[in-house]
Amino acid sequence: MTDRDPNDSLPIAVFDSGVGGLTVLHECLVSLPEEDYVYLGDDARFPYGAKTDAELRACVLRNTRFLLERGTKLLVIACNSAASAGLESARELAAAHGVEVVAVIEPEAEIAAAITDSGRVGVLATPATVAGGSYLRALGRQRRELTVTQVAAPDLAAIIQRGFPFSEAVVEQVRSYCAPLRRARVDTVILGCTHYPLVRPMLQRFLGREVRLVTAGHALAAAAERILEARRIASSNRGEGEYRFVCTGDPDAFRELGTRFLQLPLGDVELVDL
Amino acid sequence: MTDRDPNDSLPIAVFDSGVGGLTVLHECLVSLPEEDYVYLGDDARFPYGAKTDAELRACVLRNTRFLLERGTKLLVIACNSAASAGLESARELAAAHGVEVVAVIEPEAEIAAAITDSGRVGVLATPATVAGGSYLRALGRQRRELTVTQVAAPDLAAIIQRGFPFSEAVVEQVRSYCAPLRRARVDTVILGCTHYPLVRPMLQRFLGREVRLVTAGHALAAAAERILEARRIASSNRGEGEYRFVCTGDPDAFRELGTRFLQLPLGDVELVDL
Repeated sequence: MTDRDPNDSLPIAVFDSGVGGLTVLHECLVSLPEEDYVYLGDDARFPYGAKTDAELRACVLRNTRFLLERGTKLLVIACNSAASAGLESARELAAAHGVEVVAVIEPEAEIAAAITDSGRVGVLATPATVAGGSYLRALGRQRRELTVTQVAAPDLAAIIQRGFPFSEAVVEQVRSYCAPLRRARVDTVILGCTHYPLVRPMLQRFLGREVRLVTAGHALAAAAERILEARRIASSNRGEGEYRFVCTGDPDAFRELGTRFLQLPLGDVELVDL
Repeated sequence: MTDRDPNDSLPIAVFDSGVGGLTVLHECLVSLPEEDYVYLGDDARFPYGAKTDAELRACVLRNTRFLLERGTKLLVIACNSAASAGLESARELAAAHGVEVVAVIEPEAEIAAAITDSGRVGVLATPATVAGGSYLRALGRQRRELTVTQVAAPDLAAIIQRGFPFSEAVVEQVRSYCAPLRRARVDTVILGCTHYPLVRPMLQRFLGREVRLVTAGHALAAAAERILEARRIASSNRGEGEYRFVCTGDPDAFRELGTRFLQLPLGDVELVDL
């Protein structure tokens, strides 16, 4: 990394194995509109969920190095598998460049612990995430006692990725995943996969509107804002910043799929060979 | 209307000239999930915006009569043109059956007046709605002094109806509609067309996240809840109610287009000849 600008004008960098992290970028674009962003979708290596920890760390380091070289003031890891296996490695590398890293899992756990009234918290996530237990550990680190109900949703991310409009089959699946959370009478549910905000209205209807949903996007946008303020590197721009995209796979496919996840147009997507 | 059941088991009925009102139904499905719903899309006569007041009153009475005959405990008019021209006629007809009517415009104005801090309220609506002045009058009836900035968006509803994914042209348009609202430093904006919630993230980004957006869906779901409670006709169901659709035009087109607006699957759509 050369010529890193210590001031506030560098973009926030976000990466994921594909388009899922665009729901995180979406929240950032709405919550911190004055910032610039660069988003890396490592879709040539999608899905990260099927990789070993060593492979994941290699992916994380490759992505982190690339984004640091491009220039960034804050790195956001918007992928559970990458965060679970590679957050510490990314932090070490980024710290050497004076850049902080925030990642999914911990911020959602903090918010869930802060907002639950009953202390009964649900986690809806992929089987790999549930089995890895990262949300369970993160919730265990909070300063209050929580009763956690985890539900593994084997097909939900894939169904969402395959597309809309929603079919009755999607509804039936979402309903079945919500049933154990309702039985456990949770008042707060962490959506432990960046794809799930796309079925948020359905989840809210099946869980009941008094149940609070915590998304990675919401939690990471809040965490990013705290860091920008603490380090005094928030953008001094007025109005909207710019955002752009790089991917490692098929840019056209990324753009087409990504628009649904971002709920904003992507514009040009740059192909990079990492 | 025969055998009207005075108890809580009848559906809430919602009508509009097409699919736009599905964003209102969406909010109702999420906010009041235990209720049953029937939605009438009078898409054979779309758009209502091009009709005379007399024609609109005829449409409203026809729809109201149909829904009362089917059986309903509360009627929701989710269409600005229909509400402006026909609300009083619908109320007279429905009152004779003991059914209350809520409609767009007044509930949004009440919420906007209640939540604005600065008293500077924006209205983003179609040219017909802006010219008709219904939001301006409704805001004038509130108990505090408000400074209202209206912006007419000539093509926004049509662009949204034509489809997603979003193009840069949509972004440019939405941005240009937001500019006068930003200049007026409004802190609250009424989305005066039921299509607009589909570009809500974009609006939020361009207006700034501290600006509060008031949708017809949010306002009508809250109004419906108050009436159900006051009249003690809220559903005693646990879990989700049922919802179904009738339209006057092409059921397949209605279902396909409608899914995007409802963000839930529509299932079967019944064709009726009104």
